[in-house]
Amino acid sequence: MSHNTFGHLFRVTTFGESHGVALGCVVDGCPPGLPLEADEIQAELDRRKPGQSRFTTQRREPDQVRILSGVFADDRTGGRQLTTGTPIALMIENTDQRSKDYSEIRDSYRPGHADYTYDAKYGIRDYRGGGRSSARETAARVAAGAVARKVLPAGVAIRAALVQMGPHGIDRANWDWEEVARNPFFCPDARAAAFYETYLDGIRKDGSSVGAVIEVVAEGVPAGLGAPVYGKLDADLAAAMMSINAVKGVEIGDGFAAASLRGEENADEMRASNDGRPAFLANHAGGILGGISSGQPIVCRFAVKPTSSILTPRRSVTRDNREVDLVTKGRHDPCVGIRAVPVAEAMMACVLADHYLRHRGQIGVEPDARR
Amino acid sequence: MSHNTFGHLFRVTTFGESHGVALGCVVDGCPPGLPLEADEIQAELDRRKPGQSRFTTQRREPDQVRILSGVFADDRTGGRQLTTGTPIALMIENTDQRSKDYSEIRDSYRPGHADYTYDAKYGIRDYRGGGRSSARETAARVAAGAVARKVLPAGVAIRAALVQMGPHGIDRANWDWEEVARNPFFCPDARAAAFYETYLDGIRKDGSSVGAVIEVVAEGVPAGLGAPVYGKLDADLAAAMMSINAVKGVEIGDGFAAASLRGEENADEMRASNDGRPAFLANHAGGILGGISSGQPIVCRFAVKPTSSILTPRRSVTRDNREVDLVTKGRHDPCVGIRAVPVAEAMMACVLADHYLRHRGQIGVEPDARR
Amino acid sequence: MSHNTFGHLFRVTTFGESHGVALGCVVDGCPPGLPLEADEIQAELDRRKPGQSRFTTQRREPDQVRILSGVFADDRTGGRQLTTGTPIALMIENTDQRSKDYSEIRDSYRPGHADYTYDAKYGIRDYRGGGRSSARETAARVAAGAVARKVLPAGVAIRAALVQMGPHGIDRANWDWEEVARNPFFCPDARAAAFYETYLDGIRKDGSSVGAVIEVVAEGVPAGLGAPVYGKLDADLAAAMMSINAVKGVEIGDGFAAASLRGEENADEMRASNDGRPAFLANHAGGILGGISSGQPIVCRFAVKPTSSILTPRRSVTRDNREVDLVTKGRHDPCVGIRAVPVAEAMMACVLADHYLRHRGQIGVEPDARR
Amino acid sequence: MSHNTFGHLFRVTTFGESHGVALGCVVDGCPPGLPLEADEIQAELDRRKPGQSRFTTQRREPDQVRILSGVFADDRTGGRQLTTGTPIALMIENTDQRSKDYSEIRDSYRPGHADYTYDAKYGIRDYRGGGRSSARETAARVAAGAVARKVLPAGVAIRAALVQMGPHGIDRANWDWEEVARNPFFCPDARAAAFYETYLDGIRKDGSSVGAVIEVVAEGVPAGLGAPVYGKLDADLAAAMMSINAVKGVEIGDGFAAASLRGEENADEMRASNDGRPAFLANHAGGILGGISSGQPIVCRFAVKPTSSILTPRRSVTRDNREVDLVTKGRHDPCVGIRAVPVAEAMMACVLADHYLRHRGQIGVEPDARR
Repeated sequence: MSHNTFGHLFRVTTFGESHGVALGCVVDGCPPGLPLEADEIQAELDRRKPGQSRFTTQRREPDQVRILSGVFADDRTGGRQLTTGTPIALMIENTDQRSKDYSEIRDSYRPGHADYTYDAKYGIRDYRGGGRSSARETAARVAAGAVARKVLPAGVAIRAALVQMGPHGIDRANWDWEEVARNPFFCPDARAAAFYETYLDGIRKDGSSVGAVIEVVAEGVPAGLGAPVYGKLDADLAAAMMSINAVKGVEIGDGFAAASLRGEENADEMRASNDGRPAFLANHAGGILGGISSGQPIVCRFAVKPTSSILTPRRSVTRDNREVDLVTKGRHDPCVGIRAVPVAEAMMACVLADHYLRHRGQIGVEPDARR
Repeated sequence: MSHNTFGHLFRVTTFGESHGVALGCVVDGCPPGLPLEADEIQAELDRRKPGQSRFTTQRREPDQVRILSGVFADDRTGGRQLTTGTPIALMIENTDQRSKDYSEIRDSYRPGHADYTYDAKYGIRDYRGGGRSSARETAARVAAGAVARKVLPAGVAIRAALVQMGPHGIDRANWDWEEVARNPFFCPDARAAAFYETYLDGIRKDGSSVGAVIEVVAEGVPAGLGAPVYGKLDADLAAAMMSINAVKGVEIGDGFAAASLRGEENADEMRASNDGRPAFLANHAGGILGGISSGQPIVCRFAVKPTSSILTPRRSVTRDNREVDLVTKGRHDPCVGIRAVPVAEAMMACVLADHYLRHRGQIGVEPDARR
Repeated sequence: MSHNTFGHLFRVTTFGESHGVALGCVVDGCPPGLPLEADEIQAELDRRKPGQSRFTTQRREPDQVRILSGVFADDRTGGRQLTTGTPIALMIENTDQRSKDYSEIRDSYRPGHADYTYDAKYGIRDYRGGGRSSARETAARVAAGAVARKVLPAGVAIRAALVQMGPHGIDRANWDWEEVARNPFFCPDARAAAFYETYLDGIRKDGSSVGAVIEVVAEGVPAGLGAPVYGKLDADLAAAMMSINAVKGVEIGDGFAAASLRGEENADEMRASNDGRPAFLANHAGGILGGISSGQPIVCRFAVKPTSSILTPRRSVTRDNREVDLVTKGRHDPCVGIRAVPVAEAMMACVLADHYLRHRGQIGVEPDARR
Repeated sequence: MSHNTFGHLFRVTTFGESHGVALGCVVDGCPPGLPLEADEIQAELDRRKPGQSRFTTQRREPDQVRILSGVFADDRTGGRQLTTGTPIALMIENTDQRSKDYSEIRDSYRPGHADYTYDAKYGIRDYRGGGRSSARETAARVAAGAVARKVLPAGVAIRAALVQMGPHGIDRANWDWEEVARNPFFCPDARAAAFYETYLDGIRKDGSSVGAVIEVVAEGVPAGLGAPVYGKLDADLAAAMMSINAVKGVEIGDGFAAASLRGEENADEMRASNDGRPAFLANHAGGILGGISSGQPIVCRFAVKPTSSILTPRRSVTRDNREVDLVTKGRHDPCVGIRAVPVAEAMMACVLADHYLRHRGQIGVEPDARR
């Protein structure tokens, strides 16, 4: 990952500011011959779109994606639009750029935001809506992720869910993936979701915000993906998730809890299986051993800090070093972690797609084909 | 990070297996004119060296480093050896390669190890001592880190410590950096260290193992390091730490605890200061906002799982799918997290050095020079 | 250079097909604070634009560029639009997409074109106007080059010229840079330009085409740019120029003629100068020694093959292996080398900008500041 | 190509100075399971080794290579040593480091050498034998090339030859690949070789030097290798060859001569063939169209300037700007181009191996398998 690009063979470069002309991405290295329609990308974007409940920002963006390049349809493809192997540029024009007074955000540094650090680095920043540091950038990731899903072998299923809001974790005994689409929190525990509704309403009415923990799971990933020792699959996942706005921690499998285990508990024992592959009896490792996928579900969790924009005044300073009290007005998510759920899936898809292509490159066969 | 290389301008490539001829690294992109002696690198290596207490593996490796290239001394340098800007190759020959019977590890997959996944990926593996997946590879990281420290601006101090062993965290009220050098655990809390001594002795005698949490802190880092949005400083740190053997989770600042906070609590408020920079009143963010350093201490923690090699038999399978019970004999660390402490410092140093050079490249001035 | 991206710190990613929705580029890593208006980029694009004389394709594209991101203007910048250090996305919409019959080009492989090789690689291709392999992609390079020029230190002047058309070289004694803007061939020799007019008219009327040699010179480049031994300045220039459509050879300084020289002739002798730098008495090396700029003008030449689209029938085969005779109809340049002139300048600017930033990164001071 | 690394999936990093402790390389990304013995690498190195005739430097280096990592042999491999997919480190220790007086080369800038530019860039240089800029670095390339050859599909044959010495080209009618091994010039024309013997003796006795042109041909390369538009196969070849010491020009196929052709002449016409692939009637393109291999032989030529170290005094300056006359004493090649022949093969092999792996990664099948 460097600058605004990530991936090696499946490479994603994103661009755009919150209130600029447009944002988007260039997906380079995509295999040719994959069916790809704007509608499919749009479906993923719509899951992330703001303004879908009272629990996400009321900013109303259609987030309409256009495919600018890299696909082709003719009679030989049966009219289906296929990827050509050339760069796929995706663009989302910004339409909801309400003219407003930006003088406060222009001159002051909002606590918890990147205002001061962008200024310290660049000496200039597009402060409108947070500019490049806005979570709006993640729309481009979701678009890229929709392409990445096409690249992965059939049978790979990537799903994410919110598993904790503020200090309140879900009850894993209630986990139901179907539930995720039924509540505005992407929460797999219906009972927790009901609680979150009341809880987050209170937070929202207080003008406050709260953090969250997101879990993303990839099932059906073949054994063998990952490139030790610095291109480890878990290292790339850690970077991918940590690069999402407001993320402060990432863990794989048991994660931090593994520190408290003894070796006997942590070992994922194996038994023989009919298909000749080891049958694991547990998955403390989260599907990755030595940086390489084991064939078990890949399990990754990350922590999102509370939205920094709140209505309670916070002490800060101005660009010219005067002290101020700041209230961040505007349309905000009381729990920005919610909308990170589709972003998590997208980042998982991009990382896996890249490692899948890299595996084919070095090894020359599909993963798991060997043995 | 790709394959066995990490960094963009300050690039480290490592090579070598646990029981091969040698291991080492090539450090490319190092600025010229920096004093660099093998002794200085050796001093860092000696901190990581096994066999220094009964709590680390009894394998006895001198881990003697040689500088093969990239430095020069003559009368004009006053006899001091300086970096020349060309690649610095460092080599550590493996000397303690006891001939032993590897047949069990050759044919069976040790739970928690990378045995199965390397086989699944490559179809072949150097199983002696874990081969490439051995923690021995981290010696090369420590060597590279010694070079990276030279690159960083004066005033940057990088220190790491063990802050939890098994389920037992330290008491942060007792934190004393001086203490770290005084106990075999790199623990900053003398009382906790005394407890760990007894605790780990028990674990060791049980033939068991236990995990740990390591914290690494970089002080004096100027504001402005980091390259949003995929080359974020925290994203690179997450990848760097997650790439260390046995690491299962990484967090910055408050990390996972931030998920439980409300926006008011999490905001690091600011006041005016005499030097014109904001004075932060807290550091929940761990010194990074929007992927860019804020000038506050950079605080990173990571979880290390318990050593997978234990004396209690675990169920597993052989390469040809037969079921076995395995005991991992040999010389092992009951808490592999201990020796991760100098490795953590090295990875922090390498990431910061790379971002420091990248900052100079894009911005053209030293970080924090602007304003 | 990988896939559709080139550069390390100053990185350019291009996208788009000849007859797709749009083409463009993302310029990542640009320093902040540089004034950049669409008009300035447009001025460079207009030099490359087709249809400006009877000697270039009559395709009429306005090639209107839009800046989608990475710039910002407010009252604090005095209304001037400045780069912000974030990715600069540039887009040119395709407007002249005449509907025409593509069946012949769809089914047959035009000799000298990339039709067969794209099919062999990807199994699918956007054949309309050559798709991704069209010289139209170079518009994105020229746009990126306009940004790169802003990055370079004041005093760097990059100019290119056509120095040979078909077998007819210019007379270097007549070289006048002013002349380049006065004729439709970017030719610095007025007399040669007059000859080319008649000559190329003949070629054009024959339905034939002819090759060319382009020379690009960068003056005022400080000594010290280049990163041996694989990131050599000349190696990067060679790749950059060879990546331009239809280029078949690249040389630096005396180039192939150097093979015929003896050591005494080829040595660029030096004398002392007032500014403390060597005064070179010749520039056989073309301004690069050991892969690093010497402070002399950087001189690079490249050969462009004749346009492959000609009206004379050529023997070929179809996709399904039937033999055909092909005539490439449509709007074409009789000498595609002409329009490579602004492209050459753009590629030189991008390579130098990247090396300039890389130099600052590794060395920490401006090139030539040392000594 | 960046710094001292080239390649994307098949990556080579070299290190070492002419008179340092050792030089070598790390080859990363090599597929697993390939037989690789030090002897095989040694055989390639021996072709490049100096001191084999009176026409190359009399420096006597055994250039003995050691494999430090990345290979493994046991009873399961039948005792054969195989690559494991991990980094292959190769080291050649420097043994012939005669102590001599370096004061002249330390203080003065040899014309045509990198002395001044290294000083201008780095402010320090290892001047002994040219340090990092010495052609001795190419030994590491040849070693890496020996590994690359193993990676390529069976049937790919890479051979290079010297086709011009000074102004004297060979007669292509006499081309005989067998002849290359029979004369000290790697010349495929026995008659030319006989002439060169006398010619170069004269040059050598004059204390002078002369340039050369080398041609490298890869046969049996499948169609489809190359990654447009910046990772074009010809662009990567151009960079690879230009990065070899003393190279000043690179061309593919007809190269610069193509500029003088008309479209009709330059078009490589095609006819149907029995295997379903086009049968090309000519190869002006040198096996690459649109940056992608066509299945025809890949033909690349490059020009090497005359050795800069000569016995005739040349005017120069010292580090502190005093004027001097310099004679470069020591052991030198009168035609450094000769020893570039095995280096050319190695670079071709590395570039093809990288593109071969990249192809498999993106496309998922062996090149030429599609259609």
